[in-house]
Amino acid sequence: YICMTEIIIKDILFIDGKRRDISIADNIISEIGEVGIKARKEEDKEIKIIDGRDKAVIPGLINMHTHSTMTLMRGVNEDDRLQNWLKTIWKIENKLDPELVYWGTKLACLEMLKTGTTCFFDEYRLLPSSSKAALDMGVRSFHAYDFMDFYNKSKINFYKEECIKMYEESLLWDPLIKFTVSIHSPYTVSPELIVWAADFARKNKLLLNIHLAETRHEVDDCIRAHGMTPVAYLDKLGVLGPNVIAAHSLWLNENDIELYAKNKVTAVHNINSNLKLASGYKFMYKELKDAGVRICMGTDGCASSNNLDMLEALKTAALVQKAWRGDPTIMSLNEQIGMATVNAAEALNINAGRIEAGMLADLVLIDMDNYAFTPNINFLANLLYSANSSCVNTVICNGRILMENRAVKGEAEILDKVNDIYKRLF
Amino acid sequence: YICMTEIIIKDILFIDGKRRDISIADNIISEIGEVGIKARKEEDKEIKIIDGRDKAVIPGLINMHTHSTMTLMRGVNEDDRLQNWLKTIWKIENKLDPELVYWGTKLACLEMLKTGTTCFFDEYRLLPSSSKAALDMGVRSFHAYDFMDFYNKSKINFYKEECIKMYEESLLWDPLIKFTVSIHSPYTVSPELIVWAADFARKNKLLLNIHLAETRHEVDDCIRAHGMTPVAYLDKLGVLGPNVIAAHSLWLNENDIELYAKNKVTAVHNINSNLKLASGYKFMYKELKDAGVRICMGTDGCASSNNLDMLEALKTAALVQKAWRGDPTIMSLNEQIGMATVNAAEALNINAGRIEAGMLADLVLIDMDNYAFTPNINFLANLLYSANSSCVNTVICNGRILMENRAVKGEAEILDKVNDIYKRLF
Repeated sequence: YICMTEIIIKDILFIDGKRRDISIADNIISEIGEVGIKARKEEDKEIKIIDGRDKAVIPGLINMHTHSTMTLMRGVNEDDRLQNWLKTIWKIENKLDPELVYWGTKLACLEMLKTGTTCFFDEYRLLPSSSKAALDMGVRSFHAYDFMDFYNKSKINFYKEECIKMYEESLLWDPLIKFTVSIHSPYTVSPELIVWAADFARKNKLLLNIHLAETRHEVDDCIRAHGMTPVAYLDKLGVLGPNVIAAHSLWLNENDIELYAKNKVTAVHNINSNLKLASGYKFMYKELKDAGVRICMGTDGCASSNNLDMLEALKTAALVQKAWRGDPTIMSLNEQIGMATVNAAEALNINAGRIEAGMLADLVLIDMDNYAFTPNINFLANLLYSANSSCVNTVICNGRILMENRAVKGEAEILDKVNDIYKRLF
Repeated sequence: YICMTEIIIKDILFIDGKRRDISIADNIISEIGEVGIKARKEEDKEIKIIDGRDKAVIPGLINMHTHSTMTLMRGVNEDDRLQNWLKTIWKIENKLDPELVYWGTKLACLEMLKTGTTCFFDEYRLLPSSSKAALDMGVRSFHAYDFMDFYNKSKINFYKEECIKMYEESLLWDPLIKFTVSIHSPYTVSPELIVWAADFARKNKLLLNIHLAETRHEVDDCIRAHGMTPVAYLDKLGVLGPNVIAAHSLWLNENDIELYAKNKVTAVHNINSNLKLASGYKFMYKELKDAGVRICMGTDGCASSNNLDMLEALKTAALVQKAWRGDPTIMSLNEQIGMATVNAAEALNINAGRIEAGMLADLVLIDMDNYAFTPNINFLANLLYSANSSCVNTVICNGRILMENRAVKGEAEILDKVNDIYKRLF
């Protein structure tokens, strides 16, 4: 990494249409000022100066739900039905080893940097490998230890012990990577383990991820088994709370939404995965928003939605909302970008998602010198509806420049290595 | 343009997974062969050699419905309701002049080259300017003279005379650009002019564009006014036939689909525009396909869908089909790419859309040396679901290299000029 004592970005466009200078000291945005005030500092040779005149700055995007190693399965089982698709994926996943997870996660981080993501919430297996990969790439990340006992009592102790061991190890982790826990879903985890995992998360102040209300099938099954929706079932088990990050949250009824609101659960929309696997498209954006629920965006893993492109996900989400509601005003541009920035930072309880003095220096510089920003009547509209993620020019995470002019250190090695080893899965 | 007597692309990946060499002579694909057979020709200094080893080749994409000058209105009136949106756009359009149309169309062509489109069907005003811009950019294009009398009898003769005059001028046009006609829509054109335009098109063997069944509102109004759907109304007027290109075709009933099939009408899906303006999303892909109707893809103008990116449109279209049908198998990858290649070439009656000896040399070379194609388990899935259009590396149209390694001649001038003049519209 290019590691500087200070970075100054000069004369760059902000979302509000004004141009400013940004100073970064260590991993924090130290100062934001009117253009020009930083000129005196340029004499200092230690300072990295970035010319922002052709560029705009946005907060680093935050991907709130993914399984990053699944980059290795990009393009497997296209156009297949969910049941066949799952069987194929599960068979492949059994062949994963630490080396595959390490390089799969590195490939995911490379893709995230290229597409403007500086922070992600990962749920997978072999956490020591995935978290090390993210740390080596310099990307801020949360790694959820995944409980999935398939109602097999003999596995419960194994999960509890492994989770405690990994949590204890994680206390020594670099602060850039964080340990969390995940209840895979209400239908793959026994109530005993669900309750234990939720207690463990609460006691240790950890985020708790869960796949929730992803398919209609899941909701119907849960009603048949427990006489209530998956959300109500989790509420009954005492799981729901402000640390819960509920991926998908697609098939919610009015009562479910009330339970989200009451318990301050975060809903994570995964539009492209939901569309591609035909899980559904009527994400209750308006109802959740009106109830005061925090709404974030995720890409899901590359095996289901094929990429980790947050700008693309934001565009598709807004387009689909407008269409199925029959209302082009349903989601403003600021709400759209907010799902991937300020809302996510709040859910993760990190000092990011906005560009202000004192915040973490997680920034994305957008190249506007191209057709997608010509003319530039409305910068956010151009970013979210006209451009694609190739407009991401430079990425700074935790005060370090991880991509500059689209170059990421070690890119060729990652591509070569993955192309070399992924075949072991098939 | 780089204009060569011959181009050879060596060792490039085809969609079928095989690597071959491609020879181009003048504007035609002269030969396709197994890798290596072309080596002898490299001694000839006139031959341009392209190394295809990191690349794949696809037919140039064909955008079957756009209003290219609307690049100038990119980002105007975001998140607005259709009625307000239209009023704003119509007010702006009245300020268009030949210079604005010329540079707006050049910007559109620049964007199309960057995103892999080699041919487009344009419907707008000031055709001499738009067609000249397309010709100057080297992009194959069809320019539809647009009838829109708003049922004002005093305008009918003006339209007829202008159309005849422009058609006669077009007989001297370069074969790369072609004149066609357009009935704007059944609700903006009087029956007298509709019938005349349809006869004129048929007599002169011209394609006939029309906006058809775009909104539910349009269908309801037509039923109220004429006692039948817009499609049935056009059928009654004798308009429908194999030269008819029906943009949108979104709100069709069973009888409408039968009329399309019987009359060999081409349906052009414009997914992103339909979503963004909240016109609808239940495009009857399966029913149209089962009835044998040819289905193509368009982006619509940048004022409604914000970009001209065909790969993005193909992705969104397939995702939305899978979701609203609840069936991930609803559209295969080959059908998806076919909407933008072979189907469109058939509708336009041009010798393109496939990569075979004897076809027009309209080719797009895809850069696979990046995360989106790693691993490359399924090339078409990576192209359509993982990549974005920045994977388009080189574009050849009519045997000329219009973009090489993403560089287009005159790019900076186009951006500067548009940034300079677009403000006249506001």
